[in-house]
Amino acid sequence: MAETNTGRSFVRSFFTTPTAVEGDDTAKMLRKAAQLDGIEAPDVWVPDNEDATAPSMRDEGVQNIIDVVSEYGADFPGQIHPRVVWHRDDPAARHQGFEHMMQLADPDAGAIEHIDGFVIPEVGDLDDWKKADEFLTIVENEYGLEEGSIAMSPIIESGRAEIATSHLGHEKGKDSNNLERLFLLVDGQVDYTKDMNAMTPTGAQPDWKELRHNTSRAASANDLISIDGPFDNIRDVEGYRQRMLDNYAMGMLGIWSLTPGQVVEANTNPLPSEVGSYFVDVDGESVELERTGDGIFEYDGEDVSLDVVDDGLYQLTLGRDEFDLGEDELHEKLLDETEYVMSMDDYVDSMEEFEAAKEAGKGAISLKRTATLVLGGTEVSVTRDRMWDEATYQAAKTPISLFQEVYEARPDQRADLEELYGADLVERAMQIG
Amino acid sequence: MAETNTGRSFVRSFFTTPTAVEGDDTAKMLRKAAQLDGIEAPDVWVPDNEDATAPSMRDEGVQNIIDVVSEYGADFPGQIHPRVVWHRDDPAARHQGFEHMMQLADPDAGAIEHIDGFVIPEVGDLDDWKKADEFLTIVENEYGLEEGSIAMSPIIESGRAEIATSHLGHEKGKDSNNLERLFLLVDGQVDYTKDMNAMTPTGAQPDWKELRHNTSRAASANDLISIDGPFDNIRDVEGYRQRMLDNYAMGMLGIWSLTPGQVVEANTNPLPSEVGSYFVDVDGESVELERTGDGIFEYDGEDVSLDVVDDGLYQLTLGRDEFDLGEDELHEKLLDETEYVMSMDDYVDSMEEFEAAKEAGKGAISLKRTATLVLGGTEVSVTRDRMWDEATYQAAKTPISLFQEVYEARPDQRADLEELYGADLVERAMQIG
Amino acid sequence: MAETNTGRSFVRSFFTTPTAVEGDDTAKMLRKAAQLDGIEAPDVWVPDNEDATAPSMRDEGVQNIIDVVSEYGADFPGQIHPRVVWHRDDPAARHQGFEHMMQLADPDAGAIEHIDGFVIPEVGDLDDWKKADEFLTIVENEYGLEEGSIAMSPIIESGRAEIATSHLGHEKGKDSNNLERLFLLVDGQVDYTKDMNAMTPTGAQPDWKELRHNTSRAASANDLISIDGPFDNIRDVEGYRQRMLDNYAMGMLGIWSLTPGQVVEANTNPLPSEVGSYFVDVDGESVELERTGDGIFEYDGEDVSLDVVDDGLYQLTLGRDEFDLGEDELHEKLLDETEYVMSMDDYVDSMEEFEAAKEAGKGAISLKRTATLVLGGTEVSVTRDRMWDEATYQAAKTPISLFQEVYEARPDQRADLEELYGADLVERAMQIG
Repeated sequence: MAETNTGRSFVRSFFTTPTAVEGDDTAKMLRKAAQLDGIEAPDVWVPDNEDATAPSMRDEGVQNIIDVVSEYGADFPGQIHPRVVWHRDDPAARHQGFEHMMQLADPDAGAIEHIDGFVIPEVGDLDDWKKADEFLTIVENEYGLEEGSIAMSPIIESGRAEIATSHLGHEKGKDSNNLERLFLLVDGQVDYTKDMNAMTPTGAQPDWKELRHNTSRAASANDLISIDGPFDNIRDVEGYRQRMLDNYAMGMLGIWSLTPGQVVEANTNPLPSEVGSYFVDVDGESVELERTGDGIFEYDGEDVSLDVVDDGLYQLTLGRDEFDLGEDELHEKLLDETEYVMSMDDYVDSMEEFEAAKEAGKGAISLKRTATLVLGGTEVSVTRDRMWDEATYQAAKTPISLFQEVYEARPDQRADLEELYGADLVERAMQIG
Repeated sequence: MAETNTGRSFVRSFFTTPTAVEGDDTAKMLRKAAQLDGIEAPDVWVPDNEDATAPSMRDEGVQNIIDVVSEYGADFPGQIHPRVVWHRDDPAARHQGFEHMMQLADPDAGAIEHIDGFVIPEVGDLDDWKKADEFLTIVENEYGLEEGSIAMSPIIESGRAEIATSHLGHEKGKDSNNLERLFLLVDGQVDYTKDMNAMTPTGAQPDWKELRHNTSRAASANDLISIDGPFDNIRDVEGYRQRMLDNYAMGMLGIWSLTPGQVVEANTNPLPSEVGSYFVDVDGESVELERTGDGIFEYDGEDVSLDVVDDGLYQLTLGRDEFDLGEDELHEKLLDETEYVMSMDDYVDSMEEFEAAKEAGKGAISLKRTATLVLGGTEVSVTRDRMWDEATYQAAKTPISLFQEVYEARPDQRADLEELYGADLVERAMQIG
Repeated sequence: MAETNTGRSFVRSFFTTPTAVEGDDTAKMLRKAAQLDGIEAPDVWVPDNEDATAPSMRDEGVQNIIDVVSEYGADFPGQIHPRVVWHRDDPAARHQGFEHMMQLADPDAGAIEHIDGFVIPEVGDLDDWKKADEFLTIVENEYGLEEGSIAMSPIIESGRAEIATSHLGHEKGKDSNNLERLFLLVDGQVDYTKDMNAMTPTGAQPDWKELRHNTSRAASANDLISIDGPFDNIRDVEGYRQRMLDNYAMGMLGIWSLTPGQVVEANTNPLPSEVGSYFVDVDGESVELERTGDGIFEYDGEDVSLDVVDDGLYQLTLGRDEFDLGEDELHEKLLDETEYVMSMDDYVDSMEEFEAAKEAGKGAISLKRTATLVLGGTEVSVTRDRMWDEATYQAAKTPISLFQEVYEARPDQRADLEELYGADLVERAMQIG
């Protein structure tokens, strides 16, 4: 697993906070966020001196970041990456961004020792990325910091920046820049939608699946970490979870969070669940069975039934479809129509088993997992069987590698993880791989 | 909004016409198309001297273009961009394309003053695009026209050209070419399908969503305008509309039209509708409610019903699903299961409200929109609520910017627009932004 | 149709075999595969000295390839492309790959005259591809073989390699490499999933549609051939077929095969079927009608019915929907709700008809195809009508070009093809285009 220059291979949550809000204490929200801890604290916290903060408040915002980060930064469990102003089409915005970074990085101000990098919005092509990189090099030089030590995370929110991600490999590593400082590639779909001139009848955001794929791909190709953009409908927790599931299947394991509630979701969803779950397909919808015991999953609604018609003859009903099946056919059918979502325990078991087999000189083994399904009162045993070789093992390792890094990098979340999985399983999970 | 070198930021319709057809008057179709006006006249008209015209008729086609455009061009309300022959793999075709452009651009022939540019089909990689660009530079020099003044619109109909769109940013602007003349990027899916060796069981055209995304993205990144390819099934108006809806969500606001009927659809569909509409999700299908008054939407089929069971208790039926809900739950449920499509009035209202708030120093406001739904006779009020900040405002502006440009650039459509929206609303829409 | 340097424009099946397995005769599987013939023999056979073979057996694997290929290679009906070890991040693996290629290519060993090229896994960016290319140039020089004569087929199984496919056009053809030796671009989704850090709840492989599009596009742009990765669930024949259908619509006509059974599927599915078939859409599902005669398709289940209500008035039931229609409306409705999958005969007929029309000076013709549908006992005639021009003709030609190449390149499959289609039809199909 390649590490970025900030020492992380995974970032689950990217949480933005306005740097200055109207009122007596303009740093109120910042101070509150700085004290988040445990599962509510993000992997990357972004004091947001751009869109979340009114333009007239942004100079004050910089001072607030300095005040709050120098006071609370040492104890903050995640990384801190303020977002400054920037725009590919606006030299004044870029100049202001430069000045703000210079102020924030001043060692005398006391914040820079807790700041890991900066988030740069609205970048254009790579020449534009290099301008931000150059400003950071000048900042580093001014204060005697090591070149490239301040991370930089551009927001991909223009067609130009999306295309730039495909060309990054040609520029990173050149003597004339310090693009090795790159850390996150963050999608910004609201501005991207504007830049692309896209529109939908309801004003809902387009899917932008290609953008997410291309961002994830560029992260993979350049040892960076990809982060999906904000999910505006804060109350729609199910929608946020579904979005993350879709992202995980693209290799985009991190997502923007707008509230501590979203941070909790973003922190927990990529980790394997504590128990496995079984789903059955009913008329195209995936219905979860109830786990009523260890390896026992039950359905007792009206849409699924299983009856023994005769010795070794079954009648299976799945929604509008009815099947008369022999024993083997029934097993085959259930394999096709059900899905099993693995638990942390399953991951660890399978990996341990494969590692033992490899030790014993085997290249591939068959891994079996048996469950008892109870459908409309009738019990049936289903055995899923999968060939594991080195490549399967490597691909299955991703959630475990993520777990291991979280456990190492976030001591504040260890108690939560041990409560969730049990200390034994946590210990086994930390030893594999 | 960046403008192309032809002064347009949006093109809705791209209408091709054969330049010469068998018969007594081979210019018949051309002459008819040249006299289109108002909503039937395209934003870009393409006398098509390539695929639409038989190879043996193409020299005559050039003469027909000259005759018809010099006669009718001054009054044609859209831009005129003839398509000439070209092929990345065929020097003879390129030579012929060069000769035809030279003839068409001759000031003595009288057409060039009404011709805005040329459409170049079957391009390959960027070196091939540059060959067409160079021929146009020679043509411009020959006749004392300004370098780069003749626009060029390549058809993306090969894998090579699709890849080229990702590299355009590196070449445009170099001293050795005049690629600033680029105007439209037009997809050509029939030839693309051939070039990709793709096939479907029914002979239907593949979806090619990635091609459309990549074309739209390159247009956004290079200040160009993207246009989808032809929709062959001319009678399938619903299909054409659905295709456009899909395209708008990718930022591809223009489409090829094969008939004046398709031109009308392409011209009107990207503009906001005159009244809003409500949709409810029934078993996965989106069903439109009937608008029975200002802000009142009614359903009285069999699939949706709403009954007051008790004080503050409701039973809602949506297709096969039934829900017992309290008042707040009902509101929440209806928010989830319905969609509202904004009218022109809604866009203008919201933008005016946000502009006023910004003026007053606010960065973000909550915009509410309340409607009365009548479901199976029972009335219920639904309030949709959305946070607007600068980014939301910018993204929502696209259809209004399009409207404004249409109003300015197409005086022949003003009467239609005023009849559709009312003069008041048109005036307000022209003043925002 | 551009030909690769191996003389093929299409490859349907890419079949891998372990080079050495535990047991008395470690070359057992290799020897068995080498004797495959006819429809069971792949277009490209890959003795797999990488993932399919245990690391400790790979030196022996090389010797087995030499033994088996020198004995059986002359009679093997497909091409032979062994896979050697390689990794972008591992110089030792690359060195071993080089040594193995040097051994395999030694003319004294007797295998190289039957080996067409090598498959290189785990490549990174183009500089990495060039390292493998350079090793092959050295091998060719060492043994007096023509530069570029040994083909090279990289496996695209990293984000880096996927991006590289978009830049290939800039490097291929340079004096300093021999990348003209490139032949296949093969997707490898298991390792790609790992490289992208992607994960799914059930461990199923993500869809990776963008990867397949981009691979197919790069093949099209660089006169190469694209091949989809392995389909692990060997028993799921329907799933394998559906995967191929999806691939064909992206221009990816070849697929990895893990068993001779999969080879048969991969060899036969891209060819037109011997008879046409009709499908009707019932509640969103596509249901096949039974072909009960030449051009006669019958449905007699419960979901579709057609009744003559009155003279020229029909009642059509499609699943949950019922329609009262006049004669023309019925025809229109059936056109919309049914699909016809063309047979080999249909392709040949249509192309012959278009060729004759073109000969007679016509650029576009209307091609009609009439079938009799029998729905719930009631007969109705449906005529599908499609405009064909040069572009339609070219796009429709792909399956026929594929057929022609198979017939030429695979004499061992001719008898099978003649039995399937009849000698007459085969002869006509070989003469068009």
